[in-house]
Amino acid sequence: MNINILTLFPEMFSPITEHSIIGRANEKKILNISLINIRDHSLDKHKKTDDTPFGGGAGMVMSADPVFRALESINAQNSRIIYMSPKGKLLNQDLIEDLSREQALTILCGRYEGVDQRIIDYWDMEEISVGDYILTGGELPAMILIDAVARFLPDVLGSAESHKEESIYSGLLEYPHYTKPREYRGMQVPEVLLSGNHKMIHLWRLKKALELTRERRPDLFKAFIDKEDRLTKEEKKVLNEIIKDD
Amino acid sequence: MNINILTLFPEMFSPITEHSIIGRANEKKILNISLINIRDHSLDKHKKTDDTPFGGGAGMVMSADPVFRALESINAQNSRIIYMSPKGKLLNQDLIEDLSREQALTILCGRYEGVDQRIIDYWDMEEISVGDYILTGGELPAMILIDAVARFLPDVLGSAESHKEESIYSGLLEYPHYTKPREYRGMQVPEVLLSGNHKMIHLWRLKKALELTRERRPDLFKAFIDKEDRLTKEEKKVLNEIIKDD
Repeated sequence: MNINILTLFPEMFSPITEHSIIGRANEKKILNISLINIRDHSLDKHKKTDDTPFGGGAGMVMSADPVFRALESINAQNSRIIYMSPKGKLLNQDLIEDLSREQALTILCGRYEGVDQRIIDYWDMEEISVGDYILTGGELPAMILIDAVARFLPDVLGSAESHKEESIYSGLLEYPHYTKPREYRGMQVPEVLLSGNHKMIHLWRLKKALELTRERRPDLFKAFIDKEDRLTKEEKKVLNEIIKDD
Repeated sequence: MNINILTLFPEMFSPITEHSIIGRANEKKILNISLINIRDHSLDKHKKTDDTPFGGGAGMVMSADPVFRALESINAQNSRIIYMSPKGKLLNQDLIEDLSREQALTILCGRYEGVDQRIIDYWDMEEISVGDYILTGGELPAMILIDAVARFLPDVLGSAESHKEESIYSGLLEYPHYTKPREYRGMQVPEVLLSGNHKMIHLWRLKKALELTRERRPDLFKAFIDKEDRLTKEEKKVLNEIIKDD
């Protein structure tokens, strides 16, 4: 997959180009990340890339021309073009899986108040938000998107960090994990996890995941209940006990 | 504000320690970011920090001991302790504003399948999620949180990037921005923005923000309607026309 990133701060991307799993994917050429500095495409003698907003208001708006030229320099029309924006649709696993099937993505990172609307309109950009909060720019969101998408590409994850298959736990918050030692500062690992009884372990984990989801994310819990036909008889029993507790 | 970050990949944090607005806040000592490498606190001769999960399953779990020792080395009990986790409560502007009032934050970044549950329980950690998607680790989410929180600290943002005050637009997606030139490749800036009529401009922006929010985020639109008493008579008229269109 080819990913082009348009930014005023290309040096911010070292976490995904140099380090960690994504850096390895980049080295292995599974993922080819190109950083395009928008400033290099400004025709202004001071390399200006922003200006004050029409209609007034605080802050600066990124100008159309340098971004248009940067997009044209990489033939962005041949890729799916994304603008990281708090007004976009919320990133989720379905969208990530969909993006992971593309040959090429182009991601525009905004700064300041945002970009001239004509950039978004002309290039028919897909606006994506990583969450309902305000950040200083689109660079961290772009890295979030790339990290999440890269996990879906073949051969990116090692066996130690294996990509979760669609499972009965999908859509639920994760059950608690425990590793050695069995006792740490007086705190024990739950007995059932030491039992070797795989069915019991599965049902305990499902119960924990359901309880946590009901408590913290009623929205996800409701969506899970709506798909309960996937469950085995024993799994349904666990679910019904939790619903009964309400 | 002091922020301690516990991570296996301290080198990933250069985007917020060196670059951009947050880097400047770090230099100006408004924000003091300390990176603690969990691996340095492993007593294992190979500096191991993870192990296989009790009860089976793919992946590795971060062990309690190195994290406990890292937390003790910085007296983390004197700070608000956060674990970046997809099973946490969703980050939003209210939570960010609340966090920005703390003297000290400690943020644990997980990797692999997660951390031993006894870490979360013993230290009574607050679990926070940046969104409903799976990432390779907590480092990018921690940077998102810090970037968002830093914007609320005094003197972090320059006038060009001023922190949005509570306004009538709060809770809505942003209206479109335009900057010079008035015409770009045949595309015009909307007339009203050139009118100089501040009231008209405000009502146009409100209309655009409302239309966009209704279309893309019905959840936010509904929440906005519920608080409509804040609106002036003219603002209410704009809102009612949009509701009528439904």
